[in-house]
Amino acid sequence: MPGKEQTNGLWIVGCGPGKQEYMTGRAIAAIARADYVIGNDSYLTPLGPLLNGKTVIRSSMGKEVERATKAIELARSHAVAIISGGDAGVYGMAGIVLEVLEHSGAQIPVEIVPGVTAANAGASLVGSPLSGDFAVISLSDLLTPLEVIEKRLDAVFSVGIPVVIYNPRSHGRPHNFALAVEHARKFYPPTVPVAIVKNALREDQAEPVITTLGEIENVIDAIDMHTTVIFGGIESRIWRMGDYARGIITPRGYQRKYVY
Amino acid sequence: MPGKEQTNGLWIVGCGPGKQEYMTGRAIAAIARADYVIGNDSYLTPLGPLLNGKTVIRSSMGKEVERATKAIELARSHAVAIISGGDAGVYGMAGIVLEVLEHSGAQIPVEIVPGVTAANAGASLVGSPLSGDFAVISLSDLLTPLEVIEKRLDAVFSVGIPVVIYNPRSHGRPHNFALAVEHARKFYPPTVPVAIVKNALREDQAEPVITTLGEIENVIDAIDMHTTVIFGGIESRIWRMGDYARGIITPRGYQRKYVY
Repeated sequence: MPGKEQTNGLWIVGCGPGKQEYMTGRAIAAIARADYVIGNDSYLTPLGPLLNGKTVIRSSMGKEVERATKAIELARSHAVAIISGGDAGVYGMAGIVLEVLEHSGAQIPVEIVPGVTAANAGASLVGSPLSGDFAVISLSDLLTPLEVIEKRLDAVFSVGIPVVIYNPRSHGRPHNFALAVEHARKFYPPTVPVAIVKNALREDQAEPVITTLGEIENVIDAIDMHTTVIFGGIESRIWRMGDYARGIITPRGYQRKYVY
Repeated sequence: MPGKEQTNGLWIVGCGPGKQEYMTGRAIAAIARADYVIGNDSYLTPLGPLLNGKTVIRSSMGKEVERATKAIELARSHAVAIISGGDAGVYGMAGIVLEVLEHSGAQIPVEIVPGVTAANAGASLVGSPLSGDFAVISLSDLLTPLEVIEKRLDAVFSVGIPVVIYNPRSHGRPHNFALAVEHARKFYPPTVPVAIVKNALREDQAEPVITTLGEIENVIDAIDMHTTVIFGGIESRIWRMGDYARGIITPRGYQRKYVY
């Protein structure tokens, strides 16, 4: 990791879901010390005044390799913060930056600053759907063949654990989500709850949608590339608390051990 | 969620791995407004001066149901922060508090504040082991039968994704980790990398251990209940960068699409 005295290096920063209050102090400090801040617009915009005095390089979605190469070049002599939404290590910039760095043969101090990933941000808005074991699967087949994704879905649904779906639906692949639903239905009854969370803990957050596997077609329009979908597991159930809340509870198993 | 004017309610707060710089601003604010702060010692101690002026109720591990009941009782008329390590929704307090709350029939404003969970904190110290899809499995059989855990391990290893193991080993269940290794070996070659991270991003963090599935017995003593173990997936590899770093890279698949 780069030391305090270090004037050059790469900070790969997970900025959490979007609102600044969900960033860690470490993420804010890493941006504060950076000469250059590199990221795509949707992650840079919420940073607002944190970017004052920095050289900001705005990149676009899909240009991750180019962005990583540029960041490494600059980091030979400057402090460079590369911005990821959520956690930098989960569908974020950490992987590709380290791959390009390895290939370049350069030796540059690197720190990865973890953040609140969309699975946890989304779950926090809909009760406790991920109380125990769970899996995280992306439906984007840009980098992973669709048949591999389908095998993974089958495997995790077959053991009844909750599954968080990243990149559930986009213009380029409108049908992948329907496939995921098909796989879930092989193993789960129609009563299993499903949550759809759009722009979780961002300024433009939508009201989360709580539905079931049996009724999900009714709310399919709520799902796009800015949503995270959480399939409950076989033991999950809808949670209600009068006017205050509606969501999903996945019991941890305390009910098997304790009376309450 | 409790509003700004709200004087009573439950804030179930994920405080991240331990060091205060890895807490979110929202978590700090939730504690600041609380009259009562409830949690177990290992999560309360790092909070230090944030607890000044609060009534602090220290509970012990394994007393989660009791802690939840007490918190709900107090929250009828006070602002109560319940402290979880990591993320409140992942093996944290959110699930059991909502279960007990539901059972009590009380209607109390609740906010779950997400945090950086051990999977992401641990991964950030060892490169990018979780770049894409992954699963999170606890080896604690206190609340989940061991045969269920074994089936889950088989399912996730069978599709080659990285697996983060929570609660890998304790005095009460010294053999569960060996079982997990057995299941991994059914599907993964001995070259698959494994990371052992102890007290990630806490004051007493240990140097992470990077090994392989084939050699893990040599470092088994490094694994205890304070460690998170990350099994790489079938595509993961050891990552080295001279003197600066050693860890794991799980490629996202960019190498199939781009030249770099």
